[in-house]
Formats: sequence, structure tokens, C-alpha cells
Amino acid sequence: VIQQRAKSFADARDWGQFHSPKNLAMAMAGEIGELIEHFQWLTEEQSRQLDDQAREAVALEMADVLIYLLRMGDELGIDVLDAAERKIEANELRYPVEKAKGSALKYDKL
Amino acid sequence: VIQQRAKSFADARDWGQFHSPKNLAMAMAGEIGELIEHFQWLTEEQSRQLDDQAREAVALEMADVLIYLLRMGDELGIDVLDAAERKIEANELRYPVEKAKGSALKYDKL
Amino acid sequence: VIQQRAKSFADARDWGQFHSPKNLAMAMAGEIGELIEHFQWLTEEQSRQLDDQAREAVALEMADVLIYLLRMGDELGIDVLDAAERKIEANELRYPVEKAKGSALKYDKL
Amino acid sequence: VIQQRAKSFADARDWGQFHSPKNLAMAMAGEIGELIEHFQWLTEEQSRQLDDQAREAVALEMADVLIYLLRMGDELGIDVLDAAERKIEANELRYPVEKAKGSALKYDKL
Repeated sequence: VIQQRAKSFADARDWGQFHSPKNLAMAMAGEIGELIEHFQWLTEEQSRQLDDQAREAVALEMADVLIYLLRMGDELGIDVLDAAERKIEANELRYPVEKAKGSALKYDKL
Repeated sequence: VIQQRAKSFADARDWGQFHSPKNLAMAMAGEIGELIEHFQWLTEEQSRQLDDQAREAVALEMADVLIYLLRMGDELGIDVLDAAERKIEANELRYPVEKAKGSALKYDKL
Repeated sequence: VIQQRAKSFADARDWGQFHSPKNLAMAMAGEIGELIEHFQWLTEEQSRQLDDQAREAVALEMADVLIYLLRMGDELGIDVLDAAERKIEANELRYPVEKAKGSALKYDKL
Repeated sequence: VIQQRAKSFADARDWGQFHSPKNLAMAMAGEIGELIEHFQWLTEEQSRQLDDQAREAVALEMADVLIYLLRMGDELGIDVLDAAERKIEANELRYPVEKAKGSALKYDKL
């Protein structure tokens, strides 16, 4: 439903011409850059304890990432939620609990 | 529901210790980097016409971005879908159809 | 010499404490995000023909990336210029002219 | 001199056609993504103490970023080193030692 709304928003403004997957990938990288700037000088601990103003600013950057992600899914005919379900299933096989517990190693190093 | 599943997956593996918002922002940037590599040497036109194999690879990179986005929302107590709704509403005000139509300018340049 | 100047700048402000390689990698991602925003809605052709104002803005974003890259080299004891020389040599072997000419394929696909 | 070498490498392979500034910005974002993946699950302290193998891997990712940065400078007629000098000078004015010492605030918040 939000995917549809993001599409209507873009369509009404004739922005489909700019929204090639290539450009949307760039826009997403730009938004992630803005998101990461909120955290770059914080300790991990500080990053867990944002005040209300910082959390709202972060929420809106995250929103931008999600909107471009959904727009890209729409342009490519990809159901991102479904892909995420499939990815988690694949990860459950690649990272068995008993081997991966407490470890940040990649599956091919476990 | 997928947010819950991503959390259970991380919890079962004791990965909460790694999943500070700071680290999740970095992980998201890493995944976006992988996503962008699929498109960097394509023309915009080519990026709209991926074959099935490329589309599935892209879908799984997009899934990774979404999973980290939901994990970050979970760690920070942010409802990303709700934030996206609010962001689109804000954008509807900042980019009125009559001014923004067919233009890629930022709202402060319109 | 610029590497030294970037270090003196940071030292004078006691910023070494923030400049862990982890944080510098994040700062670099943030700057790349700002750089990419200049190009995301341009065609490739337009990106080759920036006007003076846009080119200067891009130059200063590129400068930020370089400064953080040199700072990271300094913190890790890495000579980035030397690494780039070695990387180009490796690429000359991985991408022989006769195979790579006019192709954007990765070396393992050539 | 390395800038020239990176250009010769690209020219010999007829890669100028792919190396629009737009595409080079994407390639740089991809390399930063690979760089950041080395650090995302490390503590700041661990990121300062890479072993030799990890440091060499990081050095080669940094090399990739530098190579694309120089290629972009070349394509746009930008002298990145000179831009970095100018940027540091500007930062010396924006971040006076007495105000910026020990602080990670942006200049407009100091």
C-alpha cells in the first residue's frame, strides 16, 4: 500500500523518467550516506541512545531509504518483502544457530 | 511480521551485541554498495531491462538492505513504515505537482 | 605532504579520538553519499558537462573523500598511493588488454 | 603520475566510454561499500588494530577508491589534490582550534 503511494507520488510528478533502477540505486546510496552521518562520530553505545530529536531525524532518513527501495522494486517488478522472506530462509541455512551463535564471521568462515 | 522474524533470527544467534544502530548503518551501506555494483556500468535503459538472473541477484541485495533497515528500526524503536508514510506526506507539501512536474530539482530550488 | 597537513589539522583539534578507522570509513561513506547526490538525476552525458559551479561543488566533495582516505591511511599505517600503484599492476594482469578491451565484465567473467 | 597511469590503463582498454562521472561515482560507492564491510562488526578499538592480512585487504580497497577518485578528477578536469588543499584551508577557518578542540560537532553547531 505504501509502495502504491510512493508510485502515485512519483507518477503525479512525472518522475518515472528519472526513476531508472540505476538512478534509484544512486539515490538510495545518497540517503544511506545521510543516515550514516548521524552515527559516524557516535560510539556504539551512544548510537543506541538517541534523544527524541535525533531519533526522528534518523527515522526520516530511514524512510527515504525505504521509499527508494520500494520504488526500485516497483520499477523492476520485484516484491522486496517476499525477497526478504526468502533471504532470511537462506540465512537460516547458512548460519545454523549452533555455529553462528555469538559470532560475526561470514558463513564461509564459520 | 518480517521485522519480527528478522529479530528472532538475530536473537537466536546472539547477534544483538553486534547490531548497534551504528553497526547496522554500516552494514546497510555495505549492502547498498553491493546493490550499486549491479548497475554501475549499465546504461539507464539497460538497468530497466535486467534478465531473470540479474533481477533475482538484485532482489536479494534489496532484501539485505530491507532486513538491516527493519533491524535498525527494531533496535531504535522506530516504525519505518509509519515514518515512510509521514515522509511522503511531507514530500507532497514540499513538491507540489504543479511546480515539481517533470523536474528533478530539489524543493528549495523549485 | 597533504597527508601530513590533514593529520596536523586533526591533531590540533584533538580529533584523533574520533578518527578510528571504523569511524573514518563511515565518514567516507557519508561524503560519497553527498558526491553521488550531485549525479543521481543527471544522464551520463550531463555528468560529463558540469557547469563551473557544479564542478567546484563536486571538487570539494571529492576533496572530502580524499582527506578521509588519507586520514585512514595515516591511522592504519597504509600508504594509499603505493597501494594504488600495486592495485593497478594487479589489474593489468587481471584485465589483459586483448580480453578486456571495450568490455565492462569483471575479470572472472572475461 | 598515478593519475596518468590510471588513465592509460583505462584508455588502453577503451573504458572511457564507461567512465562517465556518474558511473565513476557509483563505482566509488561500491568500493566504499566493500571497505566498510571490513569494519562493520569490529569495535573502534579492533578497527585500530588490524592484523597484516586484514590491513593489506583494506589497503587494496582504499586503493580502489583512490583510483576511481583520480579517474573522476581526470574526466572532469578536477585536480583533487589541489581541491583537498583548498578544503583543508576552508576547514581551518570553519573549525577554529579553540572552538573545535575535542568536539565532533559540525561547524554550524560549534
